[in-house]
Amino acid sequence: MVTIKEIQAAAQRIAPHIHRTPVLTCEAINLAAGCRLFFKCENFQKVGAFKMRGATNSVFSLPEEYAARGVATHSSGNHAQALALAASLRGTKAYIVMPTSAPAVKRAAVAGYGAEIIDCEPTLQAREETLEKVVKRTGAVFIHPYDNERIIAGQGTAALELLEEQPQLDVVMAPVGGGGLLSGTALSTQAMAPNASVIAAEPCGADDAARSFAAGHIIPSFQPNTIADGLLTSLGQLNFPIIQEHVQAIWTVDDAAIITAMRLVWERMKIIIEPSSAVCLAAVLQHPLETAGKSIGIIISGGNVDLDHLPWLS
Amino acid sequence: MVTIKEIQAAAQRIAPHIHRTPVLTCEAINLAAGCRLFFKCENFQKVGAFKMRGATNSVFSLPEEYAARGVATHSSGNHAQALALAASLRGTKAYIVMPTSAPAVKRAAVAGYGAEIIDCEPTLQAREETLEKVVKRTGAVFIHPYDNERIIAGQGTAALELLEEQPQLDVVMAPVGGGGLLSGTALSTQAMAPNASVIAAEPCGADDAARSFAAGHIIPSFQPNTIADGLLTSLGQLNFPIIQEHVQAIWTVDDAAIITAMRLVWERMKIIIEPSSAVCLAAVLQHPLETAGKSIGIIISGGNVDLDHLPWLS
Repeated sequence: MVTIKEIQAAAQRIAPHIHRTPVLTCEAINLAAGCRLFFKCENFQKVGAFKMRGATNSVFSLPEEYAARGVATHSSGNHAQALALAASLRGTKAYIVMPTSAPAVKRAAVAGYGAEIIDCEPTLQAREETLEKVVKRTGAVFIHPYDNERIIAGQGTAALELLEEQPQLDVVMAPVGGGGLLSGTALSTQAMAPNASVIAAEPCGADDAARSFAAGHIIPSFQPNTIADGLLTSLGQLNFPIIQEHVQAIWTVDDAAIITAMRLVWERMKIIIEPSSAVCLAAVLQHPLETAGKSIGIIISGGNVDLDHLPWLS
Repeated sequence: MVTIKEIQAAAQRIAPHIHRTPVLTCEAINLAAGCRLFFKCENFQKVGAFKMRGATNSVFSLPEEYAARGVATHSSGNHAQALALAASLRGTKAYIVMPTSAPAVKRAAVAGYGAEIIDCEPTLQAREETLEKVVKRTGAVFIHPYDNERIIAGQGTAALELLEEQPQLDVVMAPVGGGGLLSGTALSTQAMAPNASVIAAEPCGADDAARSFAAGHIIPSFQPNTIADGLLTSLGQLNFPIIQEHVQAIWTVDDAAIITAMRLVWERMKIIIEPSSAVCLAAVLQHPLETAGKSIGIIISGGNVDLDHLPWLS
């Protein structure tokens, strides 16, 4: 079971390898939102995303004899890059199963960190079967992107740092996809600021967490579709009970609201955030009564955007 | 004459009204450039540009009886917004002469800070004549955007803060347009780090400073043309002698190099900078031998970009 102790141990373990990211505020956005927002900027994290925290904690938690065989995952996103970099920092190998449809720039980034890429067809079945073969062949340890206790503990360190700097927050918010970031954030907040609420934000087009939360059991997404491409996955088994216990609400927003919030941050804060990172601000702007006058921490999940295809230009 | 004393006085005067901006570094860009770069991020300054420093110093330097009559300038850029905000912070009026061709978004920003906009035809002659009438009618004090000692002292405070945090720099760089930022930067560097060089960077398409510097007398730009729209103006009379005395070199770069450097900062640092702010990094990348292994401070001048028209998408 993950508790604040595991999160604190993760924070110590990963500190030499990750960035302590800044907490930024913006007067103009506070004025527009009618509350005080504190953005924990994981877009400035290594590989441009909070995923570096969980990946680093997982890789550096492994006993030497396991670590020596390497780590493996299937992903075409930020987790793949994070695991590749974390493995290289520990001096071991990463095996990344990627669909042949993954963009060349993402393959190049993973390869650039020294990982071995194993191609597979772009179906979930092919990804899982290929991963199983790789693990059997190499003895590498599979590191799931979110349904993994070391990952949850690692992702929880972002909220830990945020609350160290801003212990008076009324609300802490995180976006939810598989639930790794949200479950870690909820555990940290519960321990560090027991009077604060934890509120998640999710795109309407991938609202399995909101529906699962309401139903009391996991309802996976069916053909999710949203601009927030980091939040397409469905909730993990380990993540859901933590969310049920420690999260007060899950607010959903549509893609138009996400794009508006993303552009607001670019224009006013002069920082680059990915669509998944704008979901919380979009939700705040759509809940003026619930957020009025409050101090709200928001985890900005990452800044990996295709600068050739900005959502407001397509 | 502007000396370090005036710059230090400016720093004290404007401190309550401006942001102390962060100095950021980026491992990936250092690796690419073969040197250590320290970016002083005036894109995070109020109104999104260093111009807020000089404008605030000018407005808050005025004796009460002058300040009461207001301030005036002709500009469609960052100086207009900065002067409008500085005047509103002092509780006085700003009169901004703007060509009818100025984009609606810039007019709205200036009006949003409470300034009075006076329209004129889009020619230099019309701007100057209209400004003269406004000054005669209102008694407002004309604040030139760069050819003004209070402006120079204010702009010099950015390098002052940079050198307080990084006193060991070998080189300090600033882009050059009218020369307000560069002359202030040169004076601060000369006083705070006398062993450091000051190097300017300028777009090839508006290279009047480089040509003036080589010739030993001011040669104004004729039909300047560059993506770096903050650097179109020609050197000011007060700025040129300071630059002649304290600047070691002016490096020029073409628009393609500016766009590449701008995109590199967006992708790797996840911060939004305007084309004028990428000119120094472009120049560093084109001078690998002169910059190898050095510690180089770069003033990032601003972050006001039209997000509907990114230079790599046009």
